[in-house]
Amino acid sequence: MQSSTYYRTHHCGELRMSDIGKTVSLTGWVNKNRDQGGMIFIDLRDRYGITQLVFNMDTNAPLCEEARKLGREYVILATGTVAERSNKNQNIPTGEIEIIVTNLSVLNAAELPPFTMDDETDGGEELRMKYRYLDLRRPQMQKRLMLRAQMLKAVRTYLDAEGFVEIETPNLIKSTPEGARDFLVPSRLQPGLFYALPQSPQILKQLLMVSGMDRYYQIAKCFRDEDLRGDRQPEFTQIDCEMSFVRQEDVWNMFEGMTKYVFKQTKNIDLPDFLRLPYKEAIQYYGSDKPDLRFDCKIIDLNDVVGGTEFSVFNNIITSNGLIAGINAKGCSEYSRKQIDELTEFVKAPHRGVGGLIYIKFNQDGTIKSSVDKFYSVEQLTAIGNKLNAQKGDLILIIADKVNKTRKVLGELRLEMAKRENWIDKNAWSVFWVVDMPLFEPDENTGEPIFAHHPFCSPHPDDFQYMDTEPLRVRAQSYDLVMNGNEILSGSIRVHDKTLQEKIFTILGFSEAEKEKRFGFMVNAFKYGAPPHGGCAFGFDRWVMLMAGGDTIRDVIPFPKNNNGRDMMMDAPGDVDNEQLKIVGVKLL
Amino acid sequence: MQSSTYYRTHHCGELRMSDIGKTVSLTGWVNKNRDQGGMIFIDLRDRYGITQLVFNMDTNAPLCEEARKLGREYVILATGTVAERSNKNQNIPTGEIEIIVTNLSVLNAAELPPFTMDDETDGGEELRMKYRYLDLRRPQMQKRLMLRAQMLKAVRTYLDAEGFVEIETPNLIKSTPEGARDFLVPSRLQPGLFYALPQSPQILKQLLMVSGMDRYYQIAKCFRDEDLRGDRQPEFTQIDCEMSFVRQEDVWNMFEGMTKYVFKQTKNIDLPDFLRLPYKEAIQYYGSDKPDLRFDCKIIDLNDVVGGTEFSVFNNIITSNGLIAGINAKGCSEYSRKQIDELTEFVKAPHRGVGGLIYIKFNQDGTIKSSVDKFYSVEQLTAIGNKLNAQKGDLILIIADKVNKTRKVLGELRLEMAKRENWIDKNAWSVFWVVDMPLFEPDENTGEPIFAHHPFCSPHPDDFQYMDTEPLRVRAQSYDLVMNGNEILSGSIRVHDKTLQEKIFTILGFSEAEKEKRFGFMVNAFKYGAPPHGGCAFGFDRWVMLMAGGDTIRDVIPFPKNNNGRDMMMDAPGDVDNEQLKIVGVKLL
Repeated sequence: MQSSTYYRTHHCGELRMSDIGKTVSLTGWVNKNRDQGGMIFIDLRDRYGITQLVFNMDTNAPLCEEARKLGREYVILATGTVAERSNKNQNIPTGEIEIIVTNLSVLNAAELPPFTMDDETDGGEELRMKYRYLDLRRPQMQKRLMLRAQMLKAVRTYLDAEGFVEIETPNLIKSTPEGARDFLVPSRLQPGLFYALPQSPQILKQLLMVSGMDRYYQIAKCFRDEDLRGDRQPEFTQIDCEMSFVRQEDVWNMFEGMTKYVFKQTKNIDLPDFLRLPYKEAIQYYGSDKPDLRFDCKIIDLNDVVGGTEFSVFNNIITSNGLIAGINAKGCSEYSRKQIDELTEFVKAPHRGVGGLIYIKFNQDGTIKSSVDKFYSVEQLTAIGNKLNAQKGDLILIIADKVNKTRKVLGELRLEMAKRENWIDKNAWSVFWVVDMPLFEPDENTGEPIFAHHPFCSPHPDDFQYMDTEPLRVRAQSYDLVMNGNEILSGSIRVHDKTLQEKIFTILGFSEAEKEKRFGFMVNAFKYGAPPHGGCAFGFDRWVMLMAGGDTIRDVIPFPKNNNGRDMMMDAPGDVDNEQLKIVGVKLL
Repeated sequence: MQSSTYYRTHHCGELRMSDIGKTVSLTGWVNKNRDQGGMIFIDLRDRYGITQLVFNMDTNAPLCEEARKLGREYVILATGTVAERSNKNQNIPTGEIEIIVTNLSVLNAAELPPFTMDDETDGGEELRMKYRYLDLRRPQMQKRLMLRAQMLKAVRTYLDAEGFVEIETPNLIKSTPEGARDFLVPSRLQPGLFYALPQSPQILKQLLMVSGMDRYYQIAKCFRDEDLRGDRQPEFTQIDCEMSFVRQEDVWNMFEGMTKYVFKQTKNIDLPDFLRLPYKEAIQYYGSDKPDLRFDCKIIDLNDVVGGTEFSVFNNIITSNGLIAGINAKGCSEYSRKQIDELTEFVKAPHRGVGGLIYIKFNQDGTIKSSVDKFYSVEQLTAIGNKLNAQKGDLILIIADKVNKTRKVLGELRLEMAKRENWIDKNAWSVFWVVDMPLFEPDENTGEPIFAHHPFCSPHPDDFQYMDTEPLRVRAQSYDLVMNGNEILSGSIRVHDKTLQEKIFTILGFSEAEKEKRFGFMVNAFKYGAPPHGGCAFGFDRWVMLMAGGDTIRDVIPFPKNNNGRDMMMDAPGDVDNEQLKIVGVKLL
């Protein structure tokens, strides 16, 4: 890049020993001003780094006096000579040199900012959100935004090379049949009618496949008017992709390649080939469709080794087709009563709601201690331990409940143990596919099939046979990419055959009118030669967060909203005068 | 790229003489099916090209019968052997080979499409908009979308290399103080309040400069709820850029470089260095702030050579400080009475509204014929002709009216003559800067200064002296890039000093309350060390249109809206049930 402009010859991260003797002009913000009496040292900061400026009372007292007055975050222009530092700072790339300043201009004064511009700032989140433009001055935040841009660049480089065409789809569209609530935009030219902001470009990218574009991608803003529980934002960014004439394996290979490329380009990490874990196994062994595989600790079914005793709790579960399963907390046999109680409270918490937690301690001294000692012999406990590969020093934790609940809660307990025991290497990466997701899932209330992903997912060819008889058994050609326990990609092969699409709508119980209203133009498009196609979308914010080491996606979104959907800096949403509402044909309730 | 997938080994633009003998599988759409009795020839089309498939009754009658049944736009998979064509087609890259097909699968049948998929289609615009996914199958449209993507790629490559960071700004923001009407989005979490969709990221990119990001860009979707006169869309794409520590020349050099780079990368055109035409001269010589300089034909002021005769029309204009000016229509001296009448009607049209058109013909035989013969001697007419550099065969066209109107209408007449006379070389490019735009313009009704661009434009340093006394005389540090008579970039150096910003608000007559409400958080941000900064935004759709040779920006937007703001394909905007409105706190009027 050409760093020189009208104001500066170099930026603050650029000068080295080889520049000594040069006359340079630098611009930036006063990061620190250290007054040592006879000398003033200023750390001048810009996006590129920090360079030390020096002023000397002996050689130029008036200039030194000026420098003394510079407050934090003043914007200045300093001209001077590059000199070798006597007291070198090996922590920064410019630490071997300093600038002996001969000319100084204040480009803009600054009031004292409400918090410090350091990575370890004294500003709380609310304050930093209100002054986001100052928060973004912190080096950590600047690095995060730059990493985000680097990742985008790597994504585009890879996809461009693979023949994907970047295509922009509109943001003012029709209400789409996806899961969440749409943001609405009243139309002024057609009062009483509304646009919706896209929840994703799903339908439009499928139409691009119908149009023969073959390979499409877009870094797409998506909008969902959901309650902002957890780490969600009303607008977020997807890397949205679609390919024609492909089966699942083509999509997996392509985007596994892309993910590896981005890791290599931005972090110099070589990821190993991605496991393709069937959904069923993910649930069975980890109680989650997005397990964290940075540590092992599988869930093991125990129904076959815990029955046939006097312990009615287990017997009842077995006879009611429930599940008894456990995990092996390696090296935790010395857990105290208090610690075990904490774990018991964890699994009994209302939103988990299992009845209790059973433990078996395989002590270092070879003895076995369990909360069900009186029902099980040492041999029986050893048999359970063997299934879980228990060694001396291990702690087995067992839950007995309905199948889904046992798995789910053990999955959460597994994560809780990893946190307590620091089982997760912070530098480790676990990236893999979860495949063979179900096509339908039972409605929570009625038990009727509803679509698990969206109604355009293609069934697995091996399961076509169950479509009419056992729809809930049918796997979709649908897949997720899981990264360190987060779903960062979701995708599927789509239905391209209109007869099959009709069958799926029928299974879902849509009326003709509903079909026409919700999917009419889409189904119509498929009459004119839709190719086999499929694709995926990455949740880009979350991916960047994982790469940047942030705690929430707000850390990697330049101007995020808070949990009330407010932009604290702009103070949006805001009120609008009635005249403005009248023009678009609505009024307040 | 890896063109091979589960379905195909190659795409339809790929095979050459060097592939002869290979067994290949191709997928695509049936573009043409020519039945020659003993042989069937099918042109198979995908995004990459067309490949000829051959079926022979002699060698495989059943397959040939199947091929005969394939209708236009069927999606098929054909496997066979690459062979040399006897009848080569030099017009397409694959024209030397064909595929002797041995296996054929119909991947999807197609109903007869409502228009042909050729560049010269038989479908009218309305029909093509409704079936946009079919319209986009036309090779011309595919080329346009691909050119658009190539241009984006070149833009990013250039800006990335120059240290610009791609940063996404939000789409759900606060109503901004820019010219047009905002699209509003009711908030469900805070009923009664509204987000606005951004008209541009102007304020946010300035805040990114305050945050020290130094160089920013974004390919930004912008939204303006304007009446869709002419070639506008409610949502459009800007290449939005901002730089810190720069003056105008830095911005000009950077984006002149980018523009040249994009031309070179996508069209292999080397643009010459860009003229920097002062706004005043653009108006004076071309009657427009975005003149088309692919031809000359300057407007020449004539007040000094047309006075002092009996011709009261001119005398009155001169005494009332009006302007008499003319253009030289080279080689048009033989224009008939009818043609001159047409030009007269053109300038007298109600929206132009000048009183008439005066001509002087400098005939090939050396005689001079004018509509004001009786007031002007041959010497006087010759003197006028000399000012306009008239030669034998030229036609001088003169208008006399108020200064602005004379210039404006002559500017339009100049373009009209270029169209009539084919003065414009379709392969020529005229790209240049218009600089030194005015900071304020007089309000049409009151004459009071209102901002010409936006209130953050910095005045020209040489004109600070007139800020208090003659604000309308002050030039802004504001500039446009003009391409073949279209404004494709607009930008400025921004005010970064809060005292100057206050002064501008005062001149604009904003009250304290208004200032606070409209610009409060922005002015507040500028207290904490805003660097000098400036930037620009390209109207990307228009630029692509010019490069792609389209007639309207709809030609280069994948899914555009019509002049009523409707998406004809999706049928958006649409109605929304009352329950959905209630949730967001509004009801219909």
